[in-house]
Amino acid sequence: MVDTSISKAAPAQVRIDLGERSYSIVIGTGLLNDAATWQGLPRAAQAVIVTNDRVAPLYGERVVRALSGYYPTVHTVVLPDGEQHKTWQSLNRIFDALLQQGCDRKTMLFALGGGVVGDMTGFAAACYMRGVPFVQVPTTLLAQVDSSVGGKTAINHPLGKNMIGAFYQPLKVVCDLDVLKSLPGRELSAGLAEVIKYGPIHDLAFLDWLEKHMEELRRCEPTALAYAVQRSCEIKAEVVGQDERESGLRAILNFGHTFGHAIEAGLGYGEWLHGEAVGCGMVMAATLSHRMGILSDSGVERLRALIQRAGLPVVGPRLAEDNPSRYLELMRVDKKAEAGEIRFVLVDDAGQAHVRSAPDALVAEVINACCD
Amino acid sequence: MVDTSISKAAPAQVRIDLGERSYSIVIGTGLLNDAATWQGLPRAAQAVIVTNDRVAPLYGERVVRALSGYYPTVHTVVLPDGEQHKTWQSLNRIFDALLQQGCDRKTMLFALGGGVVGDMTGFAAACYMRGVPFVQVPTTLLAQVDSSVGGKTAINHPLGKNMIGAFYQPLKVVCDLDVLKSLPGRELSAGLAEVIKYGPIHDLAFLDWLEKHMEELRRCEPTALAYAVQRSCEIKAEVVGQDERESGLRAILNFGHTFGHAIEAGLGYGEWLHGEAVGCGMVMAATLSHRMGILSDSGVERLRALIQRAGLPVVGPRLAEDNPSRYLELMRVDKKAEAGEIRFVLVDDAGQAHVRSAPDALVAEVINACCD
Repeated sequence: MVDTSISKAAPAQVRIDLGERSYSIVIGTGLLNDAATWQGLPRAAQAVIVTNDRVAPLYGERVVRALSGYYPTVHTVVLPDGEQHKTWQSLNRIFDALLQQGCDRKTMLFALGGGVVGDMTGFAAACYMRGVPFVQVPTTLLAQVDSSVGGKTAINHPLGKNMIGAFYQPLKVVCDLDVLKSLPGRELSAGLAEVIKYGPIHDLAFLDWLEKHMEELRRCEPTALAYAVQRSCEIKAEVVGQDERESGLRAILNFGHTFGHAIEAGLGYGEWLHGEAVGCGMVMAATLSHRMGILSDSGVERLRALIQRAGLPVVGPRLAEDNPSRYLELMRVDKKAEAGEIRFVLVDDAGQAHVRSAPDALVAEVINACCD
Repeated sequence: MVDTSISKAAPAQVRIDLGERSYSIVIGTGLLNDAATWQGLPRAAQAVIVTNDRVAPLYGERVVRALSGYYPTVHTVVLPDGEQHKTWQSLNRIFDALLQQGCDRKTMLFALGGGVVGDMTGFAAACYMRGVPFVQVPTTLLAQVDSSVGGKTAINHPLGKNMIGAFYQPLKVVCDLDVLKSLPGRELSAGLAEVIKYGPIHDLAFLDWLEKHMEELRRCEPTALAYAVQRSCEIKAEVVGQDERESGLRAILNFGHTFGHAIEAGLGYGEWLHGEAVGCGMVMAATLSHRMGILSDSGVERLRALIQRAGLPVVGPRLAEDNPSRYLELMRVDKKAEAGEIRFVLVDDAGQAHVRSAPDALVAEVINACCD
């Protein structure tokens, strides 16, 4: 007879070192149900779980039950799912609930959901009574590897995405890998795009590892997922740790995002998932790196093959008759552009990233070569 | 012939020491027109002045002109005047303007107005693209002595005042004493309430000084005003410097505010000015300090006389048939109350403040003794 109680591996931990705002990312299976997950958080009269109408029926009850052992009152705020609801109106529903329940400055918020829930809950925590503590419980792969580190919180404004927000750190991040099993395959692939990103910009050994384990990741095997999430968070922490307020180095995390944002904006947001656009954008950025003479042809091909194996598109969509001009136009209005100059994140054969501008003619060639 | 260029005193400076978020409060006359006031701020493509429809016609043009020497484009956002406009809707008008003008992360905001403009502009600066720099240019005495230090920014929510906000520090605070001449006398007196407060809680020598110079202050004599503003900011800085995130000590700055908030809420906000309610609230808090045995009768009388000389009410309004019960009820729902226990700021004969609870019966006696 097998004793299953000892077969479960202890969760991995990534420590994010930010002085008095330091916190841990816990990565493992069965975490939502495990009392140890929620121990050690500050006590308060009330806890409030913020989630969405897709995640609430799957995991809401479980987290309420777990938290009820530690907080006398646990409320749940259910927001509508989707990027189009990342608005002031949704944010205000959180504030309404907090005030109606008489929540004080010690109230703990828990963000149970994907990136949208995490961004909004984090921003609500940053602003409510000028700051209450919060815990991230990301339920998508993208949120686990991307939103767990960096402290970026925000809502959208009708005139721009993520325009209103704050840098605000959680007390803890709980990445339960079990919840990824309920993710549609397309969303899992989109999350893998942000995982793959960390290889070429910072760690070629991780790129090797991803090539060996891509099938296991797509099958949601916990050991492989745990390592992928852990290593992604570690690399992001190394980069962000040197640049918490996004003044320079952190820009390398946008590898694939400049082309990717153009794809998203050009097709209309929601047509391709963010991760799909980033996957394809990485192929384009790698191709540009090659044309700029810092990445070998085999380096480009290697990345293209891995992105394809992750279930992601590797050929860009045609956005207009004069396709290169449309891409360039969209990239020039991106928030990251400075005075109209597009800053590309390029990678080299040594696994280093470089932020550079590039001649329009060369970029146009890359767009022609990489699109339908 | 008198050389007026040397008759003007150099502005006083109070340095607020907060590590990399340190800044200076500059206090003097003619500052809005003086190029030196605006020198040394970070350059940017755009500056945005946020003000209200009362202040804009008086000083807007002057500040636009002064800033135009340093910023290629200077926009002005004019909000409606008044606490009732300290809302998300007004805040969003700032965001709309920033986005419509294509303002980037280096855009400088200038808050030109009283506390409402300062609170909203500061919060807008804290949130726009997750933080842009801002400068406070307070145009009321209350804002000069109260909002210059502490980094509190906020908007109101329909269910509570200042419920949504951030701690966010300005790059500089410019207190031009000339602008106080256009203040109605009632508002000047209201500002003096917050000035007087700093004596009994922290500095009896300042209380002596105020007794000697109250008439000059009410006549807006610049030398007296400069010292009053400077010393108030210094004392607030000393208190806040030890407690930036409002965990304990900072509560002593609420001397007079517990009773004062009950007066404001009981009469309906706007009936008495905040400073008027605080002035009267200080008389009540001093009386309670006496009944609690830590302040002499002459200590109470001294404070009452000074508050009266500042043009402030010293007798509390009757709020209900059973007046003490109504005051107690209102004080129990105050944001500063903890689990329904009212925390009073009391003062002693040595010029020290103490945060204490008090028996309801004793508080009721004080209310009876101090009200109409």
